[in-house]
Amino acid sequence: MSINIGIYGYGNLGRGVEDSVKRNPDMNLIAVFTRRDPGSLKIKSENVPVVSASDINEWKDKIDVLIICGGSATDLPEMTPLLAKSFNVIDSYDNHSQIPVHFANVDKAAKQGGKTALISCGWDPGMFSLNRLYASAVLPNGKDYTFWGKGVSQGHSDAIRRIEGVIDARQYTVPVAEAMERVRRGEEPELTVRQKHTRECFVVAEEGADKERIRREIVTMPAYFEPYDTTVTFITMEEMKEKHSELPHGGSVIRTGSSGENNSHTQVIEYSLKLDSNPEFTGSVLVAYARAVSRMSKRGDTGCKTVFDVAPADLTLFGREELLSHML
Amino acid sequence: MSINIGIYGYGNLGRGVEDSVKRNPDMNLIAVFTRRDPGSLKIKSENVPVVSASDINEWKDKIDVLIICGGSATDLPEMTPLLAKSFNVIDSYDNHSQIPVHFANVDKAAKQGGKTALISCGWDPGMFSLNRLYASAVLPNGKDYTFWGKGVSQGHSDAIRRIEGVIDARQYTVPVAEAMERVRRGEEPELTVRQKHTRECFVVAEEGADKERIRREIVTMPAYFEPYDTTVTFITMEEMKEKHSELPHGGSVIRTGSSGENNSHTQVIEYSLKLDSNPEFTGSVLVAYARAVSRMSKRGDTGCKTVFDVAPADLTLFGREELLSHML
Repeated sequence: MSINIGIYGYGNLGRGVEDSVKRNPDMNLIAVFTRRDPGSLKIKSENVPVVSASDINEWKDKIDVLIICGGSATDLPEMTPLLAKSFNVIDSYDNHSQIPVHFANVDKAAKQGGKTALISCGWDPGMFSLNRLYASAVLPNGKDYTFWGKGVSQGHSDAIRRIEGVIDARQYTVPVAEAMERVRRGEEPELTVRQKHTRECFVVAEEGADKERIRREIVTMPAYFEPYDTTVTFITMEEMKEKHSELPHGGSVIRTGSSGENNSHTQVIEYSLKLDSNPEFTGSVLVAYARAVSRMSKRGDTGCKTVFDVAPADLTLFGREELLSHML
Repeated sequence: MSINIGIYGYGNLGRGVEDSVKRNPDMNLIAVFTRRDPGSLKIKSENVPVVSASDINEWKDKIDVLIICGGSATDLPEMTPLLAKSFNVIDSYDNHSQIPVHFANVDKAAKQGGKTALISCGWDPGMFSLNRLYASAVLPNGKDYTFWGKGVSQGHSDAIRRIEGVIDARQYTVPVAEAMERVRRGEEPELTVRQKHTRECFVVAEEGADKERIRREIVTMPAYFEPYDTTVTFITMEEMKEKHSELPHGGSVIRTGSSGENNSHTQVIEYSLKLDSNPEFTGSVLVAYARAVSRMSKRGDTGCKTVFDVAPADLTLFGREELLSHML
């Protein structure tokens, strides 16, 4: 039996989910919901209706799992609890410090509605979180490190675009290779923010703009750039379009720990991602976990979950025989 | 409340489990069981009794999880089903082609006894299996590759030692760097056994032995060496002891898949291990999963399980609040 999926919100992430649903033979895209005028929205899937978000409650009986593709700053804290009262839902909420609050709100709503919800799914939080947990369970006396990049940070790119005289900008987060090598050798170094990542900015400035002022405003921006070694390169709009139109990302979770007499043996666990498309990969993770949400809901396992609560077998189309014979 | 652990079998793996138990504050080693004369066995933990395996049934009420540290060839197929009738058990059975049979035998026994069992736990099968499953669920239309090494294969080392004129031997499995690079680039190549790994053998020969004959017998040995490019280096016993006394291992599970229009984006997931001590790491994984077995048993979730059936949250000492605040 197919799992009927709804997509709520159709930006980069919504399109990534749409792409992934097509690659999963047990998934069926039922509708795309938008807060924009549905008539103005062109989606890639043929014969799938685009519906106004305000009409979503008419779709209660048709959707097994609703994948909410909103932003973490203001959309998801409102949307997910509201929708979890009537739908099994999943989101990619990534505001790490506010996760406990979001979890409590969604859990209350989902339990009220007898629904299953899963929050903070994607790659970080998501696959990286899983790997932090697995590695810390296996090497409890070790130390872990998360490196991001090389990849585009959309938040940092947006921050640069708000500076006067900037037409467009792209910011790459770059892990410091030497720091990663020290971690991989098991040195367990204490690393400052500056020692772990650098930031590379590509900026298209207005004609006649004071580039030195723009550069200074970028590198001194608190929280975003001041704590890092930041480089700023001015380029033309043509070069921006040609070389910086994609949204690659990735990174590594590395944990090292010791074992044996006198802790003489170093054990290194590394999980890494190299993604040509950040939103398409996040979409793929959401879709795999939508399968688990559907199964947990059918078993009556309601309330808010995270990736930590999902047994891996619930993510896959393969049955027990195939898993034992070919994957274990 | 502590989890009371018994170790059944005290070879390299049993010692690895013992080392790991000490590093987990909720774990308590209750006894080590041996088929040898208990009086002849010296273990590292003080005040822990060494007990004859034949007396194990007297310990039924004292042990929460029994970690069975036997060999996969002949020990575990007998031991695990027998012990699963009376104990919650976990083993590292790694004979991939026979896993479905072993699973069925252990499942029947555990259900009979109302116990929880988990088989084929370690790093491969184990952590590598998990990563094959997670990656295939996220990138269903991709292809995965498992590379092992560089590390000591004890089975291959033993096979060399059985050759006439060989005093000692150590065999390293080495992944082919070029093949790994092709995989990481997303080429999804078809690779033969020979293209994925080479085998490096270090051999101590008897004085006057025909080294060329020994070399030939090694490199032509069916299944073990014939399908690979194998090098044989003769060394002295001193060099063997000095340079080859450890049991390092590791490897990588890499899955690549595509996303986006015309599959134009490549996504790469890689999980890799670099282990100074293979048995100590395997022991660490067994101990983390022993925690989950104990919890599943308390919830009445009986029968045979694999790593695929365990929600990650069951592996960790951290509670929900800590997981949401610090690990997600």
